[in-house]
Amino acid sequence: MVKMKVELENVKPMEIEGRSFEIITEELGDTPLIPGTELIVKRCIHTSADFDYAKNLCFSENAVQRAIEAIKNGACIVTDTQMAKAGINKKALARYNGEVYCFMSDEDVAEIAKKNGTTRATASMDKAATLEKPLIFAIGNAPTALVRLYELIQEQKLKPELIIGVPVGFVNVVQSKELIMETDTPYIIARGRKGGSNIAACICNALLYMINNKRD
Amino acid sequence: MVKMKVELENVKPMEIEGRSFEIITEELGDTPLIPGTELIVKRCIHTSADFDYAKNLCFSENAVQRAIEAIKNGACIVTDTQMAKAGINKKALARYNGEVYCFMSDEDVAEIAKKNGTTRATASMDKAATLEKPLIFAIGNAPTALVRLYELIQEQKLKPELIIGVPVGFVNVVQSKELIMETDTPYIIARGRKGGSNIAACICNALLYMINNKRD
Repeated sequence: MVKMKVELENVKPMEIEGRSFEIITEELGDTPLIPGTELIVKRCIHTSADFDYAKNLCFSENAVQRAIEAIKNGACIVTDTQMAKAGINKKALARYNGEVYCFMSDEDVAEIAKKNGTTRATASMDKAATLEKPLIFAIGNAPTALVRLYELIQEQKLKPELIIGVPVGFVNVVQSKELIMETDTPYIIARGRKGGSNIAACICNALLYMINNKRD
Repeated sequence: MVKMKVELENVKPMEIEGRSFEIITEELGDTPLIPGTELIVKRCIHTSADFDYAKNLCFSENAVQRAIEAIKNGACIVTDTQMAKAGINKKALARYNGEVYCFMSDEDVAEIAKKNGTTRATASMDKAATLEKPLIFAIGNAPTALVRLYELIQEQKLKPELIIGVPVGFVNVVQSKELIMETDTPYIIARGRKGGSNIAACICNALLYMINNKRD
């Protein structure tokens, strides 16, 4: 037995997540959260240890209920990073016949982006728009993906079930999120600069675990 | 052409990252950074939009130089999540004959963890210790992985080239990082609760881009 120079809290593997959520709930205290969104907010804090998500997450009316209905009806998830795809609980989604798509590494997407002088994220949203399925978009990286989604929605080429708009960064990130909030599309947005692939995946998982808390 | 209700900054795809780093540098202002670590700190901020990383990142002496030497000598990277594995630029690492391993979804790891009543992260560190290669550990999720690395180092069963210790969370996260800082192993640690798979991957990529700034 190796002696530890630091005292560790004795928590069993299966209890770590529960204990973490207890601490988060305790530290949130009286922070007002929108009823029905608490599990999503807390999971974002769990993923980032950043309590800003208690303030920056914005939900369109009934976004959570509508997202859950869409998942139950077999909606697929389109992401803008392989990281988010890796993070989403694909077995949990498959229970409702959903799949996760990420077209960012596709050769045709790279070619079209190069030809059009756009980001690959833009081109991959165009590719997603050709899918004939109910779709949830989970955008954790590229504001250009949100901008293209906005255009596709305005042009009536796409009608997403939900947009999880949580790209992170410094160039057009804030603006791209405001754009989505101007549409009639249900959304979950982390207003401001923060977000990320981890946050995009964690919001998808929070929705899945709200339907069925079984882990794989 | 769809009319935008929000004004977007006109930045070409290839210039977005550069412009982001300019903004980060500007906003960091006089914040003191350890010479030679700036690109790592800025990339963590770029990945999270969280300026706390300017203060919480700790580097053992010459950690960056030693890590770069290790990569050039073919070190492999072991992560504790599929998300971090997805995020690491594997083509850039392959230029130096390195590979990325994540054993978290391996059946033998799941079985051993169950048998021993540990986390899968613990069991996956034991599996990594059997690799006969120079290793960099990039831990973005599980404090139990860092605790097990500490034990393996103390037991002289493992001698990592570098530990990137950036698990995120609320249970034993702070302590597990302090433990690693007690060892003689070179480290890059995000002190406190913050971190994540995205941060683990981004530190690996920052090191790779310090050697060769070519993207794939």
